[in-house]
Amino acid sequence: MSTRAVQKMKLSDLGEFGLIDLLKKQARGSFSGIQGIGDDTAVLPLSAKKHLLLTTDMLLEGVHFTLKMPAKGIGHKAIASSISDIAAMGGIPKYAVISLGAPSTVSWRVISQIYQGIRKTAKKFHVGIVGGDTIKSQKIIINVALLGEVKRDEAVYRNGARAGDQVFVTGPLGRSLSSGWHLRFVPRIAQAQYLAGKHKPTAMIDISDGLAADLGHILRESRVGAMIEESSIPRRGKAYLKDALYDGEDFELLFTIPASRAQKLMGKNTRCYRFYRIGEVVAKEKGLQLKTSNGHLKKITIKGYIHF
Amino acid sequence: MSTRAVQKMKLSDLGEFGLIDLLKKQARGSFSGIQGIGDDTAVLPLSAKKHLLLTTDMLLEGVHFTLKMPAKGIGHKAIASSISDIAAMGGIPKYAVISLGAPSTVSWRVISQIYQGIRKTAKKFHVGIVGGDTIKSQKIIINVALLGEVKRDEAVYRNGARAGDQVFVTGPLGRSLSSGWHLRFVPRIAQAQYLAGKHKPTAMIDISDGLAADLGHILRESRVGAMIEESSIPRRGKAYLKDALYDGEDFELLFTIPASRAQKLMGKNTRCYRFYRIGEVVAKEKGLQLKTSNGHLKKITIKGYIHF
Repeated sequence: MSTRAVQKMKLSDLGEFGLIDLLKKQARGSFSGIQGIGDDTAVLPLSAKKHLLLTTDMLLEGVHFTLKMPAKGIGHKAIASSISDIAAMGGIPKYAVISLGAPSTVSWRVISQIYQGIRKTAKKFHVGIVGGDTIKSQKIIINVALLGEVKRDEAVYRNGARAGDQVFVTGPLGRSLSSGWHLRFVPRIAQAQYLAGKHKPTAMIDISDGLAADLGHILRESRVGAMIEESSIPRRGKAYLKDALYDGEDFELLFTIPASRAQKLMGKNTRCYRFYRIGEVVAKEKGLQLKTSNGHLKKITIKGYIHF
Repeated sequence: MSTRAVQKMKLSDLGEFGLIDLLKKQARGSFSGIQGIGDDTAVLPLSAKKHLLLTTDMLLEGVHFTLKMPAKGIGHKAIASSISDIAAMGGIPKYAVISLGAPSTVSWRVISQIYQGIRKTAKKFHVGIVGGDTIKSQKIIINVALLGEVKRDEAVYRNGARAGDQVFVTGPLGRSLSSGWHLRFVPRIAQAQYLAGKHKPTAMIDISDGLAADLGHILRESRVGAMIEESSIPRRGKAYLKDALYDGEDFELLFTIPASRAQKLMGKNTRCYRFYRIGEVVAKEKGLQLKTSNGHLKKITIKGYIHF
């Protein structure tokens, strides 16, 4: 497409991933960290042994939550989704700054409860809330910027998956929004620490856009394909296969690990955590395929939660 | 006031500073950095020689800018106001993450130009744009979270002003919005480095809420008063005294320094930068006073830019 045609495009034509692609192209060459836009979390040099991690997430009333939902749950979600981003890198969250936009007609009670939700979850994960910004807005806006750290040799990216690796998730997928899971999920810091320290995943991401879309991110960054098995994908409650594939905001970890190390994560071999093997990494040419319950192979479209 | 009465209050009754006070009270005891909510920038332990600085700023269409303004200037303002926060601590900005909310009807051209403005200014100040988040919103929202660092012995806070210290600003004040200065101001990193390294200000802040309000922050945190002189306050263009006192978004530095070190900052003694002495720090009981051009002393109300 010509540059002029792109200039005139509306964001609705581009979609979220199209926009991110354009921003990445435009930014090329200006980045000075270790990983840039691509992973949700930036990895920055700190010392010989540790990297800093920096991530930012914006939640908007009417898009990510409504005021009919419990305000403490909204606060929880705002910070827990950032903590989940840090988990996906194998890191530990440390400090957060919160920007809050709110209409002047909102009561202190609502704002107070949102902050209580933020602080309770922050405390649980030993995150210090160290500052913020407050502005007037038409709808409530919460932006959490979270600083964390990761041992250099434990950082996990999206681009290390290799053909033959096994694909895992940390919990059941689908219907996060309708079940209320998105307001009370537990970011998988503990599982990520266990994995990054002992089992060395080759690629990892947290499922925020949906299994198909987030596996798509790993496949694209790693230049590989994958085959996942319908019968192996754990589903939340009455979720259908399509819910498990395409709903967003599960906030479970999705990771790949060489077959030689995968055995230790399956069945009753892990004492503390449950990991679900859902498929394996294949050559790039095969794209993303689903093996149905009756043994057929079907191509899966890599789509997900589109925000524009 | 009773807790119940406060719970029912609207944010419009509290005002921005009332809201921040309540948030600080609620957060008491949960903070684990060196400085918390109070300074715009959090100071976090990094190493024996350096502290990390973390700040976040949210800009909203209709509040901080409109789309009639040049989009590159909007982008400049979004990151430069965060850089200014880092300057006020005596620090150096390093890495930023950008959250962007935008309506699907906005053209890529506008978004692209906002980002160009962000990146150009980031580059000028050696800041790496290392990540971000994009969501759909009704109005354009830009949140910049900026990570910086400061040498431990050069960090400047708001609470160190002492009676007898001299009060300075780095440039003319007032009418930032009507003159367009708020879209093209230069964050005073260079002046702050010069000051923090050689001259050791006792307290420093960047003027975003207006001279009276931001001097008020220093006085409150330092438990002192101040007397400023009408004839010494530098004004932008045709700005009246009230504009210089109460307009926001000048983004000049306001600092205090002992009289013994103040002389070196005045007149032609500084080769590179111009500093304007505007008054001096006095005992807390005297509050904030203005010495008018005809020698009278007047009490100044500590108010400023109220966002709610």
